[in-house]
Amino acid sequence: MAKDNLTAVLYGVEDLRLEQRPIPEIEDHEVLIEMDCIGVCGTDIHYFVHGKVGDVVVDRPWIIGHESSGVIAKVGKNVTTLKPGDRVAIEPGAGCRVCEFCKKGRYNLCKSLVYCATPPIHGGNLTRYYKHIPDICFKLPDHVSMEEGGLLEPLACGVHACRRAGIELGSEVLILGSGPIGLVTLATAQAMGASKVIITDMLQSRLDIAKSMGATATLLITKDMTEEEQVKKVHELLGSEPDRVVDCFGGEPTARLGILACRSGGIVAVMGMAHAEAKIPLINALVKEIDIRGVFRYSNDYPAALAMVANGSIDIKKLVTHHFDITETKKAFDVARYGHGGAIKVMIHCQPRNKNNQKPF
Amino acid sequence: MAKDNLTAVLYGVEDLRLEQRPIPEIEDHEVLIEMDCIGVCGTDIHYFVHGKVGDVVVDRPWIIGHESSGVIAKVGKNVTTLKPGDRVAIEPGAGCRVCEFCKKGRYNLCKSLVYCATPPIHGGNLTRYYKHIPDICFKLPDHVSMEEGGLLEPLACGVHACRRAGIELGSEVLILGSGPIGLVTLATAQAMGASKVIITDMLQSRLDIAKSMGATATLLITKDMTEEEQVKKVHELLGSEPDRVVDCFGGEPTARLGILACRSGGIVAVMGMAHAEAKIPLINALVKEIDIRGVFRYSNDYPAALAMVANGSIDIKKLVTHHFDITETKKAFDVARYGHGGAIKVMIHCQPRNKNNQKPF
Amino acid sequence: MAKDNLTAVLYGVEDLRLEQRPIPEIEDHEVLIEMDCIGVCGTDIHYFVHGKVGDVVVDRPWIIGHESSGVIAKVGKNVTTLKPGDRVAIEPGAGCRVCEFCKKGRYNLCKSLVYCATPPIHGGNLTRYYKHIPDICFKLPDHVSMEEGGLLEPLACGVHACRRAGIELGSEVLILGSGPIGLVTLATAQAMGASKVIITDMLQSRLDIAKSMGATATLLITKDMTEEEQVKKVHELLGSEPDRVVDCFGGEPTARLGILACRSGGIVAVMGMAHAEAKIPLINALVKEIDIRGVFRYSNDYPAALAMVANGSIDIKKLVTHHFDITETKKAFDVARYGHGGAIKVMIHCQPRNKNNQKPF
Amino acid sequence: MAKDNLTAVLYGVEDLRLEQRPIPEIEDHEVLIEMDCIGVCGTDIHYFVHGKVGDVVVDRPWIIGHESSGVIAKVGKNVTTLKPGDRVAIEPGAGCRVCEFCKKGRYNLCKSLVYCATPPIHGGNLTRYYKHIPDICFKLPDHVSMEEGGLLEPLACGVHACRRAGIELGSEVLILGSGPIGLVTLATAQAMGASKVIITDMLQSRLDIAKSMGATATLLITKDMTEEEQVKKVHELLGSEPDRVVDCFGGEPTARLGILACRSGGIVAVMGMAHAEAKIPLINALVKEIDIRGVFRYSNDYPAALAMVANGSIDIKKLVTHHFDITETKKAFDVARYGHGGAIKVMIHCQPRNKNNQKPF
Repeated sequence: MAKDNLTAVLYGVEDLRLEQRPIPEIEDHEVLIEMDCIGVCGTDIHYFVHGKVGDVVVDRPWIIGHESSGVIAKVGKNVTTLKPGDRVAIEPGAGCRVCEFCKKGRYNLCKSLVYCATPPIHGGNLTRYYKHIPDICFKLPDHVSMEEGGLLEPLACGVHACRRAGIELGSEVLILGSGPIGLVTLATAQAMGASKVIITDMLQSRLDIAKSMGATATLLITKDMTEEEQVKKVHELLGSEPDRVVDCFGGEPTARLGILACRSGGIVAVMGMAHAEAKIPLINALVKEIDIRGVFRYSNDYPAALAMVANGSIDIKKLVTHHFDITETKKAFDVARYGHGGAIKVMIHCQPRNKNNQKPF
Repeated sequence: MAKDNLTAVLYGVEDLRLEQRPIPEIEDHEVLIEMDCIGVCGTDIHYFVHGKVGDVVVDRPWIIGHESSGVIAKVGKNVTTLKPGDRVAIEPGAGCRVCEFCKKGRYNLCKSLVYCATPPIHGGNLTRYYKHIPDICFKLPDHVSMEEGGLLEPLACGVHACRRAGIELGSEVLILGSGPIGLVTLATAQAMGASKVIITDMLQSRLDIAKSMGATATLLITKDMTEEEQVKKVHELLGSEPDRVVDCFGGEPTARLGILACRSGGIVAVMGMAHAEAKIPLINALVKEIDIRGVFRYSNDYPAALAMVANGSIDIKKLVTHHFDITETKKAFDVARYGHGGAIKVMIHCQPRNKNNQKPF
Repeated sequence: MAKDNLTAVLYGVEDLRLEQRPIPEIEDHEVLIEMDCIGVCGTDIHYFVHGKVGDVVVDRPWIIGHESSGVIAKVGKNVTTLKPGDRVAIEPGAGCRVCEFCKKGRYNLCKSLVYCATPPIHGGNLTRYYKHIPDICFKLPDHVSMEEGGLLEPLACGVHACRRAGIELGSEVLILGSGPIGLVTLATAQAMGASKVIITDMLQSRLDIAKSMGATATLLITKDMTEEEQVKKVHELLGSEPDRVVDCFGGEPTARLGILACRSGGIVAVMGMAHAEAKIPLINALVKEIDIRGVFRYSNDYPAALAMVANGSIDIKKLVTHHFDITETKKAFDVARYGHGGAIKVMIHCQPRNKNNQKPF
Repeated sequence: MAKDNLTAVLYGVEDLRLEQRPIPEIEDHEVLIEMDCIGVCGTDIHYFVHGKVGDVVVDRPWIIGHESSGVIAKVGKNVTTLKPGDRVAIEPGAGCRVCEFCKKGRYNLCKSLVYCATPPIHGGNLTRYYKHIPDICFKLPDHVSMEEGGLLEPLACGVHACRRAGIELGSEVLILGSGPIGLVTLATAQAMGASKVIITDMLQSRLDIAKSMGATATLLITKDMTEEEQVKKVHELLGSEPDRVVDCFGGEPTARLGILACRSGGIVAVMGMAHAEAKIPLINALVKEIDIRGVFRYSNDYPAALAMVANGSIDIKKLVTHHFDITETKKAFDVARYGHGGAIKVMIHCQPRNKNNQKPF
């Protein structure tokens, strides 16, 4: 095996260094993965720019990145479900398996969740070799690209949000925000049978992509629009009141708009974490019996995400706008940070591009 | 039939007059009810004191009262399910039966809901004769008192809130507020299998009643307690984090406390309508995937409420602290308004007390 | 208005007569519909061939047909939601609106359900003028053809079955039977996000249509296959155990195959009514905790069915294999009965074809 | 620690021997339990009498018993949640934690479930020292007896069945069979808010116990009653059609009666495993949209079972009719087998009675 384990390590604000790290030793129940590609997430950027996300501070050298795929390089002797050469998407976290949340199927709520690139685990995916446990490595069919494997992570977020939002056949959906998460949510809502989807954003370029993906309507939110105008516009453009809302921003204005626009008996799922606190129109939510549901990461969502990509029902390839080699990590972060060139999803490659793809991405 | 149809009519702020009204004529599908007793609700008091509730203004002579029971006096010729002499509890409202909400079983969300004592229906229950439709008149077994019949209305609120809160066997429940609605919610939560219930209030006298009804713990909220202290106290007294919360106040401090105290994956049902807007701890709700569910009146909840009172599983008789004749309506309102004599539920009688009870209440 | 109300009346076994009937008078809450097209259903054929379905006997002249669309000709004075000229799909039945089933949203279980062409209502749709109630007439968008309007009835069956089967994103589905109902179920399962669908039949021609509609796999059931072989084949072809099954035949062999093939924790929805009794592998169902769910008609399923046809997600136009004028009703019945020319759905027209379509079907 | 590890070993049909076995060595993540009491289950009797249950054959010396409680004697060094001296109820099985069933909260369906006294694990609880894993040992509050701890196992079955049956506030329940499982199901249904419960059996003595536990009605099934008569009797005695049914026998006559008696839209949960196959009234189940749900053991049900026993809402102490020391195991089995002395639940003690109880049982 190669000895090169080039790794992108975040030392603090805007201090990202490429350095060699030892290739991890695996235990009997683990697998070693030769990483292929890793998408840059808003959280990664946030750590890079601010040195923290919420209460979580970059207080030591830290490897970021958690939207990844790779190829199994070695398996521990107790591993029976994977073998070297298997191409896999990597779910970043696993629960403790014994608490009430893990045992009831909501391991994302486990208080001992081990999630890569989040303390106490400082090791993320921006490295050539990464060790993991097999039940959260999902084998990719030959025709699914490594890039799509990496995209399964944000897609799993969209799947989880849409499930929490109870989207079903005939749902009329409002999606707030059309960044990468808004767009995967759009694709998921369509695959679940939403009959109409309206999506909002403050950038027209993102709405154009949403439109090209089949959104029923798009709404550009401008600073001068009142809340009332926004609600009215949503209803006009959709031709009805949405009965399912996914807020992909997670802040006061979007949560408010979601609640106010939502039909009686509807569901407003809120993901994203823009604001710690939010003033909401409480009585409006009560008389309409709205369900406001918090959404945090995902739980048992990778299998469906992969299945829908594999059968072609969800096509998210167009989200990838830029590619960089791991040696260009800083450049990749700059493009993602500033949205240069209409960047949606920036992909960092630890291997030569398309090395592990059946046909070029 | 008697010609006396003494009726309590609200003409405006603190202007409640007793006057004779014509006995209603019924149509073929309707029934005429000789009213027996009517509980005074906080909403009635609010109309009496402020002349409005939210946007709904007492802009004309208005009959209030909607927590009632009575005896069928006459039935229209198409009525097959009731007959004169039947003792009934009266559900105050019915939906249009053809909109999506009515057809899907959530008629409380019907935009054309006809609900007594709420515009466009200005006729409430504080009258000797009232006409209604049969499918929302619930026949009382002989051993159930007329007072309990009247109490089914607040109890249905409690049942609906507990159902929306998803209370089930083994739930650990926090109830915020121990007025009449908090207390019926307590009784319902116990009947649904909650293993522990902690209830809060700012009045110790109400908590004492909750304690006598079997609450696992009570917490007196005082003005000097910080939010953090309240959360900590809830956890200490309950011995765990509640996984189900019912906010019976419906305002910012209770909604906040409910969310902050709630266990990951839990549900916070909010009823009551104290505040139009509320600042909530959004990120806390998201990372714990809390469901915040609005609660509005009830829908298909009377049958279970009645069944549980009838079989003795829910005993709410002790909520009735005062009795008045309809001729004493103003006095009744004063007692209810100021909580004189530890008033919880004040009952107004349109008939001699116990006239229609198998044994005295 | 025209006075021609040519009507196809079933007088008994194979005794179907065309005759003039008076145009119905409508009441204030009703609408009169100029019928456009009516699909021939297996139930219609069964009445025609056997003079009965189960206990229901053709004991008087009887108008059959219940898969229909038409154009509003006249509205009663209380009707506000429809106007003359509106093109509508017609849901055949309505509940009593006051029983527990109607009030809880499951009006298909109403014991007083009024359903056209089923006693006590002997008036079905094979007539030029039909009266109905507005809330079960669904307005078709301009671009949706009258034929598709008629097909909404079987499609609503498929939607209801898939909902009862709990099909959701990523489901792996087995559909038993690929007649018209099996095919609409296939289309619905795909629209709901099933990742794989295998479908069975005893006729290869039907499986070919299923394949052309995108079924992942098809299985021709032959008489010599044992139950074990069938189960094994399903698993091999699907590449896994299905977690959702819809039995569109409703008989012993299909129910058995569905249960035996189903994954632990899965759901087997059974519609169709081939056999009154069925011997099922009980212990197999218990140790796998299978849910076996009965399916009967539909309830609140037309709106989603229409929305998905309108937005193009469900395309069922290819199910229509034959067209006849109402004057050719007997010929239509013969084609449907014997499956001449690979008949799937035979459509009977009460109006000149395409008269009410924006573009020819 | 004592060296006595007297153990009851089943060598084959009616060949149960008491012998010394080595005290198990524990690993770092395990605990050693000094067993206190073990209830005799019908499955144990079945192994004893027939040498097998279904396909599972006693093909080697085998320790049976799985309804148990004990006291922690020793903990492995990684165990943090328990300490020596803790009194615990013992859930007999644990899943693999990595398969789809375990990760979704239904570990009872895990194909690699390790369940004591079931192959490949031949070690059951009828022994003085038993080793286990901590997350399925449930700490008993001081006031809960060891006998109740052992009874949590059948109670967890009842809880699981009632949850699968969807019993909720106001449910009208039919329980088929009033052996130990029927009786714990009765107690659970009441605690969940069932408003009425009717229970059947072929032994009047068992029905008497059910009646003393508050069953609304009991029905003695005699051999000469037709199916129709049984259905009619259930409806008469209950005063309505049950909307929830739990079949605790799991055979053809009970499954049939359950389906036929059940209200439209209701649920029939089937546990017990009396018959491998059953002929069911399929069309009746379809037109009523009955859900027939298989029930297998339990999953996440111990916590609620314990909580309800601990708070006094479920009192199952009266189920214990007989006590024997482990040295009298054969006698205990004979009493349980033949139902001598009205035996319901026979308890075998590995310790002096009441040694670990706060007050005598």
